[in-house]
Amino acid sequence: MKVQTFTCLFCALFAASQATANEPLLSDDNIKTAKSLAAIALASDHAYILVRDLTTKVGPRLAGSAADKRAVAWAKSSLEDAGFDLVKLEPVDFPVWKRKVESARVVAPYPQELKVSSLGFGGSTHGELVAPVVSFGSLSELEVAAPEQVAGKIVFMNRQIERSRTGEDYGDAAPIRYQSNKFAKEKGAKALLIRSLGTGPARFAHTGAMTYDEHNTNLPGAALSRPDADQLERILESGQELVLGLNLDTEQNNEGGSFNVVADIVGSEKPEEIILLGAHLDSWDVGTGALDDGVGVAIVIGTGQLIASLPKRPSRTIRVVLFANEEQGGWGAKQYAKVHAAELQNHIAAAEPDMGAGRIWQFETQVPATWGSMPEELAGQLSFLGIERGGNETRGGPDLKPLKDMGVPIIGLNQDATYYFDYHHTDDDTLDKIDPAALRQSVAAYVIVSYLLADMK
Amino acid sequence: MKVQTFTCLFCALFAASQATANEPLLSDDNIKTAKSLAAIALASDHAYILVRDLTTKVGPRLAGSAADKRAVAWAKSSLEDAGFDLVKLEPVDFPVWKRKVESARVVAPYPQELKVSSLGFGGSTHGELVAPVVSFGSLSELEVAAPEQVAGKIVFMNRQIERSRTGEDYGDAAPIRYQSNKFAKEKGAKALLIRSLGTGPARFAHTGAMTYDEHNTNLPGAALSRPDADQLERILESGQELVLGLNLDTEQNNEGGSFNVVADIVGSEKPEEIILLGAHLDSWDVGTGALDDGVGVAIVIGTGQLIASLPKRPSRTIRVVLFANEEQGGWGAKQYAKVHAAELQNHIAAAEPDMGAGRIWQFETQVPATWGSMPEELAGQLSFLGIERGGNETRGGPDLKPLKDMGVPIIGLNQDATYYFDYHHTDDDTLDKIDPAALRQSVAAYVIVSYLLADMK
Repeated sequence: MKVQTFTCLFCALFAASQATANEPLLSDDNIKTAKSLAAIALASDHAYILVRDLTTKVGPRLAGSAADKRAVAWAKSSLEDAGFDLVKLEPVDFPVWKRKVESARVVAPYPQELKVSSLGFGGSTHGELVAPVVSFGSLSELEVAAPEQVAGKIVFMNRQIERSRTGEDYGDAAPIRYQSNKFAKEKGAKALLIRSLGTGPARFAHTGAMTYDEHNTNLPGAALSRPDADQLERILESGQELVLGLNLDTEQNNEGGSFNVVADIVGSEKPEEIILLGAHLDSWDVGTGALDDGVGVAIVIGTGQLIASLPKRPSRTIRVVLFANEEQGGWGAKQYAKVHAAELQNHIAAAEPDMGAGRIWQFETQVPATWGSMPEELAGQLSFLGIERGGNETRGGPDLKPLKDMGVPIIGLNQDATYYFDYHHTDDDTLDKIDPAALRQSVAAYVIVSYLLADMK
Repeated sequence: MKVQTFTCLFCALFAASQATANEPLLSDDNIKTAKSLAAIALASDHAYILVRDLTTKVGPRLAGSAADKRAVAWAKSSLEDAGFDLVKLEPVDFPVWKRKVESARVVAPYPQELKVSSLGFGGSTHGELVAPVVSFGSLSELEVAAPEQVAGKIVFMNRQIERSRTGEDYGDAAPIRYQSNKFAKEKGAKALLIRSLGTGPARFAHTGAMTYDEHNTNLPGAALSRPDADQLERILESGQELVLGLNLDTEQNNEGGSFNVVADIVGSEKPEEIILLGAHLDSWDVGTGALDDGVGVAIVIGTGQLIASLPKRPSRTIRVVLFANEEQGGWGAKQYAKVHAAELQNHIAAAEPDMGAGRIWQFETQVPATWGSMPEELAGQLSFLGIERGGNETRGGPDLKPLKDMGVPIIGLNQDATYYFDYHHTDDDTLDKIDPAALRQSVAAYVIVSYLLADMK
């Protein structure tokens, strides 16, 4: 129902504009301003300086941690410095999980240490758990396994994901991390190990969240680096019984929270109409969250900073939302949709960079047919940045899901994710993995789309 | 004096051969056999299977550890299986050092964890040491620093090494790891941190040995990953005081040891004359020592295995020596030179692969002028493998130094080390970093040179 209501609103909006004088939605003046902002973006490292600042001065910022509080303070002051008109902190409650101890070793047949990283919301082994391993290649294999195959064992989920520009194999494989716990636990497993949902050959274990259990009864769970997973695979292939020792100690506190940081450049003519640019402020605790999602934070603040530097505010409001706790279940995003429910019908469009720091290669949308030629007109303005027009089925960034579900039109400025899952959720997600030139290109693309949508008729 | 004696011996050896009938040193038959062994090497993964086996079944094998003992047993049985005639274990005594706890964090101005790896023979902090940091770019800067600049501080040696095919920057920078302790300690420093002597961008700290101190009074010392060293550099550049917390706990036991594993394919005509192929069996504890030096172990055993498969032993003895404890000061190499001192004049040549798993790109030597055209003749036989002729000043592998110092001629089959120092001495030195095709080429080159030297007139 709500979706239909929204569609009608946008229908009215665009139809009205086009009907008036059969003018193009994007005027020459708008385009000229947008292109001149893009030219500044392509020559400026102001966004790079933001992510350098965040990852150096705050570093890792696990949701609900002391560092997360410092990140919120950094965000507020950075948004104010960037020229936003209003900066608000909106509370978000969520459980706070943390890792304390993590180690693993092959006990038999070939004693040696392994590199692991506990999974968010995973439980504790309470000292070293020593148990044999049973391996599965997919969730469906685990689902149909006989309980006697699994009971008393460490379940090893062994699926290798592959690189691609869209990063789609990560999305396809992610349910292994979310859902294996349920099946493994039902069948009496003692713990869960997964081959990292990562594409790189480096010996980093990729963390990430399991599904939250408020009773804190998830199995102890950890990811294993790719070389270590290969090692286990070789041992299992030899046909010998593989016994591991696993020591995972974690802590979960259901009472915690942080803030969505919401900042507006208030529109000069239609301030109630909003172009939302999102990114998430939290990161995993292991790296400094440069790619995930420090660079996204820098793109959206950097975009706003350019628009705020214009002598006149655009017609509509540019709203940057730095979401709290994306990593452990999109808590900030859900809270934003709830608190701003009444306002969502005025959210003209939303975009979120959260796919690493590669160049934007594709412009996708998920907008109603009433947008008419607008997506193609926008795509035309992006082509000089080497950006192709994609389809109208974008999923958008992860924090946009609640908005998309409520009918907010979504813009997908898709970053090249070929190497993103080499680093994502690892120790190695650090500033040096960002190419400043790719970041400039991304800001240029964001500023063109944001400004044109904010200032079109 | 000894060097002169040896030169005269080789002088006699080659001069006699060439004088006899003015024949080329390498006969057509020799070359035909060598080339057919190389053809098998290029088509076979027997060496890859050896390094896969060693790194899977033993994994990390720190000198003097229980895993090192398993490596020795593995080596003995692998050499026997490969067809060597005699396999001996020769005891080597050395101190046994190990890491127990290692962590580091920025205390001020921007609290966050850092990734470090304790340096071999480094001391302990006995709980967390909290101290300000002073940074130097080179040993000479540290050497001339005023004691009051250094006293009570953590010395941060901040020199970044660069990639090259020869890996020479590692050699140039390594004294930072060996010698900083002396200067820093004299000036009253509390601990030593070095930017990893590594070339990769990945967030691995590269371990390695400091100079051994039998009184165990070295400063606590650790290497810092490149992204972490960059982070400290950024903080220091801001002009603020940088305070770190460092918790390093290590253990040193001066009474320990292992074995050189010495295996001969006994020559059919001149068994007392030896072609020595060396590699080191120990590794650091952090990775599985695939590149350093599992691949070298595989090359030399794999070379011997091919030669042992011939219906007739070559004229001279092929000796494989898997040296104990190269990593912490070449203890096995020194012991070999001592125990075999009387035999060294019969060591016709020695070669050691210990520069990673890249293709061999260059054939260097360090042989007396009396070898005449032999180096060029050998080089001619290697050119089909894409190997260039280098000069006559090779340093050879690290375990060959005591032999070289005693005048043994050295063969340098130089591996392309461009990416070696990305992985060297890190968690990430694992099997997947080995290209089986490059390993086949290396064995082909080793078998050509070894066989020709062993069977020439």
